[in-house]
Amino acid sequence: MMTELLPSYLQGAWWTSPSEGGTVVRDASTGEEIVRVDSVGIDLAGAVDYARTVGQQSLGALTFHQRAMLLKQMAVVLTAHKEELYELSKRSGSTVRDSYADVDGGIGVLFTYSSKGRRELPNAKVLLDGPVEPLSKDGSFLGRHVYTRLPGVAVQINAFNFPMWGALEKFAPAFLAGVPSIVKPATPTGYVAEAWVRILVDSGLLPDGSLQLVSGSLPGIFDLLRLGDLVAFTGSASTAAGLRAQAADGVRFTSETDSINASVLGPDATPDTPEFEAYVKQLMIELTTKAGQKCTAIRRAIVPVPLVDPLVAALQAKIAERVVIGDPHAASVTMGPLVSTAQRDEVLRQVAALREAGGELLLGSVDAPEVVHADGTTGPAPEGAFVAPMLVGFADTTSPAVHEIEAFGPVSSVLGYSTVAEAAELVGLGGGSLVTSVATRDPEVATELLTRIAAYNGRVLFLNRDDAKTSTGHGSPVPHLVHGGPGRAGGGEELGGIRAVMHFMQRTAIQGTPEILTAITGVWHTGAGTDRAVHPFRKSLAELHLGDQVESGLRELSLEDIEAFAYSTGDTFYAHMDEEAAEANPFFGGRVAHGYLLVSWAAGLFVSPEPGPVLANYGLENLRFVTPVKPGDAIRVTLTAKQIIPRETDEYGEVRWDAVIHNQRDEIVATYDVLTLVEKELASAA
Amino acid sequence: MMTELLPSYLQGAWWTSPSEGGTVVRDASTGEEIVRVDSVGIDLAGAVDYARTVGQQSLGALTFHQRAMLLKQMAVVLTAHKEELYELSKRSGSTVRDSYADVDGGIGVLFTYSSKGRRELPNAKVLLDGPVEPLSKDGSFLGRHVYTRLPGVAVQINAFNFPMWGALEKFAPAFLAGVPSIVKPATPTGYVAEAWVRILVDSGLLPDGSLQLVSGSLPGIFDLLRLGDLVAFTGSASTAAGLRAQAADGVRFTSETDSINASVLGPDATPDTPEFEAYVKQLMIELTTKAGQKCTAIRRAIVPVPLVDPLVAALQAKIAERVVIGDPHAASVTMGPLVSTAQRDEVLRQVAALREAGGELLLGSVDAPEVVHADGTTGPAPEGAFVAPMLVGFADTTSPAVHEIEAFGPVSSVLGYSTVAEAAELVGLGGGSLVTSVATRDPEVATELLTRIAAYNGRVLFLNRDDAKTSTGHGSPVPHLVHGGPGRAGGGEELGGIRAVMHFMQRTAIQGTPEILTAITGVWHTGAGTDRAVHPFRKSLAELHLGDQVESGLRELSLEDIEAFAYSTGDTFYAHMDEEAAEANPFFGGRVAHGYLLVSWAAGLFVSPEPGPVLANYGLENLRFVTPVKPGDAIRVTLTAKQIIPRETDEYGEVRWDAVIHNQRDEIVATYDVLTLVEKELASAA
Repeated sequence: MMTELLPSYLQGAWWTSPSEGGTVVRDASTGEEIVRVDSVGIDLAGAVDYARTVGQQSLGALTFHQRAMLLKQMAVVLTAHKEELYELSKRSGSTVRDSYADVDGGIGVLFTYSSKGRRELPNAKVLLDGPVEPLSKDGSFLGRHVYTRLPGVAVQINAFNFPMWGALEKFAPAFLAGVPSIVKPATPTGYVAEAWVRILVDSGLLPDGSLQLVSGSLPGIFDLLRLGDLVAFTGSASTAAGLRAQAADGVRFTSETDSINASVLGPDATPDTPEFEAYVKQLMIELTTKAGQKCTAIRRAIVPVPLVDPLVAALQAKIAERVVIGDPHAASVTMGPLVSTAQRDEVLRQVAALREAGGELLLGSVDAPEVVHADGTTGPAPEGAFVAPMLVGFADTTSPAVHEIEAFGPVSSVLGYSTVAEAAELVGLGGGSLVTSVATRDPEVATELLTRIAAYNGRVLFLNRDDAKTSTGHGSPVPHLVHGGPGRAGGGEELGGIRAVMHFMQRTAIQGTPEILTAITGVWHTGAGTDRAVHPFRKSLAELHLGDQVESGLRELSLEDIEAFAYSTGDTFYAHMDEEAAEANPFFGGRVAHGYLLVSWAAGLFVSPEPGPVLANYGLENLRFVTPVKPGDAIRVTLTAKQIIPRETDEYGEVRWDAVIHNQRDEIVATYDVLTLVEKELASAA
Repeated sequence: MMTELLPSYLQGAWWTSPSEGGTVVRDASTGEEIVRVDSVGIDLAGAVDYARTVGQQSLGALTFHQRAMLLKQMAVVLTAHKEELYELSKRSGSTVRDSYADVDGGIGVLFTYSSKGRRELPNAKVLLDGPVEPLSKDGSFLGRHVYTRLPGVAVQINAFNFPMWGALEKFAPAFLAGVPSIVKPATPTGYVAEAWVRILVDSGLLPDGSLQLVSGSLPGIFDLLRLGDLVAFTGSASTAAGLRAQAADGVRFTSETDSINASVLGPDATPDTPEFEAYVKQLMIELTTKAGQKCTAIRRAIVPVPLVDPLVAALQAKIAERVVIGDPHAASVTMGPLVSTAQRDEVLRQVAALREAGGELLLGSVDAPEVVHADGTTGPAPEGAFVAPMLVGFADTTSPAVHEIEAFGPVSSVLGYSTVAEAAELVGLGGGSLVTSVATRDPEVATELLTRIAAYNGRVLFLNRDDAKTSTGHGSPVPHLVHGGPGRAGGGEELGGIRAVMHFMQRTAIQGTPEILTAITGVWHTGAGTDRAVHPFRKSLAELHLGDQVESGLRELSLEDIEAFAYSTGDTFYAHMDEEAAEANPFFGGRVAHGYLLVSWAAGLFVSPEPGPVLANYGLENLRFVTPVKPGDAIRVTLTAKQIIPRETDEYGEVRWDAVIHNQRDEIVATYDVLTLVEKELASAA
């Protein structure tokens, strides 16, 4: 009997191809047929159009914070379904520990983007980039950069190894940016993607058109795309190159491909050190997690020549102690099969290629291993995609094969080096990597290596006794840091917090008057209109407008004021207290007021002290003291509402105030931003 | 007699091809032969290798500030030679006013990058990107992003219209990043590029290998490039596509191509308004500057339907009043010829194509104009590349031709629109532009247009009565703002201040312990080693180390302290003065100390008051109040040297201190950075 066809989620509804064939997907351990995958008959043009219209509109109605809130709710819903996703993933060869990276990792990306979206983005639809650039002396013409979302669709083509994390790490930043996604999972694990998409669809949290799923291929997708669309690809370097060539002018294409990642054992990390132990453990983990099917896995262990043998021996012992190969349904199993027998055969072909190029099998075997079955018995599994961990040594460490051939399974090479410079050269021969890790506690080794290898890597991890326990691991991208790398690694960038959101937006330079820039950006610009009718501290967020302002009168400063401040605070720095010494100071030429006195007085000058909507001053930014203030001078302050950010989940929000202190000659004394929390509505009604 | 061959500057020496042929370059006004250009026999592999070795080494020895200082000196030297560069440029058809954009514009880029390099970059070789990302709860494992320079060569292929600015806007950020350049000018104006390169070479300011010049073509250049190299191209969209396809995996390719830029006359900018006047003037300037040979020139004037006729009439009057076509050697001339007769013929071909597609000539003529000769006489100039300004009207405003065909000369189209949404759609039909300008004073029109067109533009300029005099102009990229645009405009980004420097660097995520991150980045990270042996305010820059620290004792706070501070500063905000009201506050639950009191006291706690190397506290950043402080609480402060930035040109530098205020329960009360100026050497010796 034929299995079911895996459905797609298109234009707000589930759809199944009328195909009577399709690709058969099987259980990685048993070979049992799970599902068929085919997209014959799909209306891709309709899906793209639905994203561009309905998806753009529904996401465009939301602010960054509103989208971020939804991401958190999605994360919560998926968390409630974790166990069933673990269970399903076992069929693809993933142990529960493997699923921590995929299922929990994917949920973690949603949580992180929700949190960063609310903390690091404004509650708005446009993102500012960098400070104001004054372009005229009189301040009437300014420049500024803004990011606005791409007007099209983000097509995300994912790899088989992380059907949940790999898709969500693309979806989350696209969603936060306000760009609808069409997600295309890899066929061998498409049923896991279908499962989490179904959970999200059933949750009702997805804005219309924000997420569509294509189970199967994307025939002719590039003919449908245009300026404003984006394709993000994860997979092999050769497929990436083919796709890139198809992308029309103006279609953004970004790729993250498997690369020949390296891990360097520092010269200081001798076998008696905790660094050596940490290195061996990390190598074992990278070889066996997901059975080595990770774009980020260690493919080249680069170790001091005298440490090659000790490393192999230590790794062998560690594997013997820790690794149990088998069906992930068995509790004792720590390493599952590859995703499919096709993948197993491909890995064995690449191992053969490495050996033909001079590689020597130092550890493991190409023979099919005995494995633990789901029922706990042990024996051969001819229908399962099992491969034992292998280490391949190379006498000629510059052999192109070892730096170019990837066996996408539990396989690493070992290369000996003599100097740190040589180790760095070997790293670079990989032609660009997602990640290189370095086990060292020597800051000089770390610095020399980084200087030489940074440009060839998207990420570099330094491992030693001080972070061995807390390290997130060589092979684990974290949402806070960029994932991707130059050259062979695809040349793309994903994650990295808000950096990834910007990849789904267009940066545009804006030039105009302060008035126009204020209107466009939602941030008050010096020179734009102001309103002093009511003290702005008396206004709730609902009443406050950009440009609402209070300007104080002048307050004169005496030597006694300076001395009193010095004695009460304890800040008796000579520039405030010692006329002769202050005169010798190159900036002051005599006693001056404390900078802290000036901002404290300014607060006294701009404050409206009675209870009201302003709840707290929670911070201050970009304070610069421009002109010293001396006894006999006077200061005044001007405070202007610069940015108003209501919170989604609180009864208050942030207001950023532009503060400028002038002296009696109208010279600028100091500039800064005051950060306050202000109620949304006046509490007085209560 | 044959003219000379234009030399190249390669591997630190001038080199001339042995060619007996080559491309003949002629005076644009007279047709007189100026020079021949050929690179037959060039050792390009040698040049690339020289850049990668000698160039990388000499630039790598310098910090950002040292490179920035050199850029300024180059700008000064070129300024001294401005007149001869103007004179030379006249032969290419440029009036002196045209040369302001090219010569002065190019020098301006050097000045701006010098200034921004010293103000916005550290005096170091590595650039940090974004804040620390804590990756473990105990602080032992951190993440951070760094930019390091590309290890290869930047090949810069320039357009003919701006032989100086166009090359320097690529060279300056590459130089500042520390990446050596190979500059390839366009043949028709290569002699101008050769002139400024010669001035720089003669000045002795160029570090070895930092700049090479290829006069002529770059045969097989892409075969020589690899990961770590970059190609930046300015020119036609079709050439860009061809080059992009040749770039090997890992070679960065960025392009800035001519695009069908638009300028929108807002519905509010009726003929009686200053906006209309400003729009007409801008259109006249964009048509005639460089005879319209600008990637950024207005190709589509998008105006309300009823204003099409008034606009054409007004432009006609303005041109009659202001435009004198002729040889730039004649003082009265305001518009020169195109760069060559080949370019003239090409422009006339494109005008014919526009007319074939339905365009109607509303202004000007395709006939060769009468022009002013160098000697002041007027008449025909059959050997000159003269074209009169033209305006082409289209009844069918969505005709693909008007949005795709570019006549790279003094030619614009005029399109009528009815609604702002329609105007925005017309802008978007250009398929991606370098710039769109909008004449409006209505913030709502500005906001609606920006929302709809931003994603299709690299730059948007808003023009109205308030910035008409100070606007830098539709067609003028400024070094502070990004230049480039999506889609048809090439998809690249140049300039934009330090943003462009980053294009010549690789961003890498770093993970490790605070100790390792401190060593690598030159910035102290919380958790890394500290030294309290000597109060750090007693140390000059020469003696100070990252992690040098002072920790104060606790100082207890009383209600009287709060009241005294309130009365002396005037800051009697209720949270400090009114127990009942403060209790109702959601954050405080009772009277609390002023944040300004806390930082003022902290200064008193960490200061070392006697004269010494610390000269001034010039600012404060990222202040956040975390825990309120109440009467009976006590505070202490820890101040740690976080970043040390000696200045190249002063006897002092900046020191950034990490400041943390704790209370008696060791809770964090406030965190911030204190910015100080500190002497390089102890003055006490004097």
